[in-house]
Amino acid sequence: MTYCVAMNLAQGLVFVSDSRTNAGVDNIATFRKLHIFGTPGERLVVVQSAGNLATSQSVISLLRHRMGSEEANLGAVENLFEAARLVGGTLQEVVEHDVGNGQGQGVDLGCSFLVGGQIGQEIPRLFNIYPQGNFIESTRDTPYFQIGESKYGKPIIDRAMSYATPLEQALRCALISFDSTIRSNLSVGMPLDLLVYRAGSLEVPAGFRVQEGDAYFEGIRNQWGTGLRQLLSELPAPPGDYWY
Amino acid sequence: MTYCVAMNLAQGLVFVSDSRTNAGVDNIATFRKLHIFGTPGERLVVVQSAGNLATSQSVISLLRHRMGSEEANLGAVENLFEAARLVGGTLQEVVEHDVGNGQGQGVDLGCSFLVGGQIGQEIPRLFNIYPQGNFIESTRDTPYFQIGESKYGKPIIDRAMSYATPLEQALRCALISFDSTIRSNLSVGMPLDLLVYRAGSLEVPAGFRVQEGDAYFEGIRNQWGTGLRQLLSELPAPPGDYWY
Repeated sequence: MTYCVAMNLAQGLVFVSDSRTNAGVDNIATFRKLHIFGTPGERLVVVQSAGNLATSQSVISLLRHRMGSEEANLGAVENLFEAARLVGGTLQEVVEHDVGNGQGQGVDLGCSFLVGGQIGQEIPRLFNIYPQGNFIESTRDTPYFQIGESKYGKPIIDRAMSYATPLEQALRCALISFDSTIRSNLSVGMPLDLLVYRAGSLEVPAGFRVQEGDAYFEGIRNQWGTGLRQLLSELPAPPGDYWY
Repeated sequence: MTYCVAMNLAQGLVFVSDSRTNAGVDNIATFRKLHIFGTPGERLVVVQSAGNLATSQSVISLLRHRMGSEEANLGAVENLFEAARLVGGTLQEVVEHDVGNGQGQGVDLGCSFLVGGQIGQEIPRLFNIYPQGNFIESTRDTPYFQIGESKYGKPIIDRAMSYATPLEQALRCALISFDSTIRSNLSVGMPLDLLVYRAGSLEVPAGFRVQEGDAYFEGIRNQWGTGLRQLLSELPAPPGDYWY
């Protein structure tokens, strides 16, 4: 499995992905799921992937190979909507190619993508690409998407984040959401890849890899765990009729 | 869907169930999923159910009808292990009966049960009954079970609860786990049924129903939400290399 989250907020974009892939419990490996395309001063397109690794790798490879070519590519599309269409179309192309040989053998070749960024003067946008290749876009009401093993980490985002949340707070919220998921589910694991983009900057950040044992991440996990237990013990005692 | 949690701790047992059932989004109803069997001074057996409602209702009906009869029943079994076997066996009987008529039509008739309580001098025990009718028992290492829509509410339990947690704190933890689930998932809903049992008391509590708008529950939901956002904003800022 996999867990990726992306947020499109007033101040900019936050992307975090884990890096664990598994096919059964004895076939675990580390693969990057956060991919950066861009030209400083002109565009940033971030693509996160979840699902069948063969499919998602092929999609990312094709997107990379075509950069700068005559074909439609992420370096040339005029806006993020076209970028989302291109990723969805490339996904359809790969699945059709791989299923087309009739060797699918019942394996689920599907994957999902999150595509976010900013191109030129357009505001930052974020899309959630379904395994069918179609997609939805984030709004101020629903400013974030998750793909993969999303349930464990959803409550903290639902409670603590909105469109107006500052980037720094949103990044902390995303990291805690990953910590919650990693603690409760073996198929999501360290290291984490993250990227924060300030709206309007048209920079292409390198992103950051949070390794196992990273001092900041360990610090906030511990502080969060201690704080939660403290918070729970400060809640008032249940009234008497709760007990009998 | 459904969400039920049960905890077997040093001080006793905590059971909480939601009450929403749904077959599609336009077929929602309220059904109790926490069932109490017992004789004060002698035994308490609590059964929680998740899964196909026709199956779980039939199982509970048969368990009730047989109380006091010549057949094996929850009022006569000598220990909790036999109670778990009886529930598992009754589940197998119902599924075999309903599938036996060849009208299953591909519908999943399965359900899961949590069976916990205390009989006589035996210590309190807790079992998780699988749809196949077999089961596992809680231990000090793993003192709780969930059935149904369990992922949203698992992180808070994993972080904040252990075998030594006092009953009051465990009940608050379970209620917060339900709040997290209800906020993130439409198929789990109010009211909640809960029961707290003090180890060794051999009482048969009536339990309590937490209605929508219950003052205590609303209070702790709000306090928890505010506290979480506060806790998140008190975490240290991410270091500079997280940003570029």
